[in-house]
Amino acid sequence: MSADDIYPIPCAFCNISSAYPAETSPIPSSPDPEKVDPQCHLILSTPHVLAFLDIMPISPGHILLTTRNHYRKLSDLQPPTPTHTDWASQRTASTALETSRALGEYLPLLSRALCAVTGIEDWNVVQNNGERAAQVVPHIHFHLIPRYQEGRKETQRNGRTDYGMLKSWRMFGRGSREDLDDEEGEVLAGELREALKGEIEGRCGKVKL
Amino acid sequence: MSADDIYPIPCAFCNISSAYPAETSPIPSSPDPEKVDPQCHLILSTPHVLAFLDIMPISPGHILLTTRNHYRKLSDLQPPTPTHTDWASQRTASTALETSRALGEYLPLLSRALCAVTGIEDWNVVQNNGERAAQVVPHIHFHLIPRYQEGRKETQRNGRTDYGMLKSWRMFGRGSREDLDDEEGEVLAGELREALKGEIEGRCGKVKL
Repeated sequence: MSADDIYPIPCAFCNISSAYPAETSPIPSSPDPEKVDPQCHLILSTPHVLAFLDIMPISPGHILLTTRNHYRKLSDLQPPTPTHTDWASQRTASTALETSRALGEYLPLLSRALCAVTGIEDWNVVQNNGERAAQVVPHIHFHLIPRYQEGRKETQRNGRTDYGMLKSWRMFGRGSREDLDDEEGEVLAGELREALKGEIEGRCGKVKL
Repeated sequence: MSADDIYPIPCAFCNISSAYPAETSPIPSSPDPEKVDPQCHLILSTPHVLAFLDIMPISPGHILLTTRNHYRKLSDLQPPTPTHTDWASQRTASTALETSRALGEYLPLLSRALCAVTGIEDWNVVQNNGERAAQVVPHIHFHLIPRYQEGRKETQRNGRTDYGMLKSWRMFGRGSREDLDDEEGEVLAGELREALKGEIEGRCGKVKL
């Protein structure tokens, strides 16, 4: 019997959540990708949600938006009702409600940042609940999956990924999903954090007069 | 030149939105499905979001959650930033923020109601942005798609749909999508409204002592 049997590895996303606690700003400044293994390319970290790059992207820029706390399925986010009469259950339910609202709030912001950085105009948002729905990590997460124009050529970014060469319409279990290159991931996550900051703070701050 | 050329049919979901204005309660009481054509089997109607049955369900219980106002893609939900200095743009941005939060808030509640009514445990949430991402109606909507156990037999409900006979893993453009039967839709939407009411008000109200 090994230590892993006695102390099973916790949920991968709980691991990320505890490695990157919420800071003052929702956008972490220069988070260390090596705080977890495999590396995490963090984009967003708030008291209720986190976002980072998928380590097996369906297409470049594939982002995951997940909850700070461990909830397996969307249905586990149970908001307050008049039946929650004690303090502890009221608090749990309030956190669930705030988490669900934060998921809704950050999906458009992450989408805008994703479009700005990758140049895409089309993307899917997918959230799977349960094995029959292709959920792999049992912790709520929304996929943001860019759909690149078929065969479209774009300028290569720093000699790295030619985003435009990606075929659109790859889906779960279809097409190839390659491991994210950590160097590429770090650059991309940095660009996404910068774009997200622009979305939240307003672009005027970046205009130099 | 016909009247339709001069006055083009508006967005199908804007049509539903204006036919079913927000009421005091988020759950409409006995909404008339024939207010629009094709019929709409309404489940939820708030100042910011609406939910109703998909008229071409991928599986029985397929729900759409949409925004009250017309936004084409998630990225059109732009929240307030310090750059919104005039009253009109601040108001537009506040509505966008409240809408995005309402989408997040109602996804778990609709999921819980869907599980309670159909008996499913697994489901996908899918939101498509743009043609290359398979968006058909150009107005933000989240699909909630039940994934039934393959070949599972369940009690038939009122001699109508045997939910369990549905094959899981039908996806967009794959498998058959049949038109929703309006009688079945009306019954199912009524059950979903009832379940959603239970979720919001708490189940204690239904216990008879």
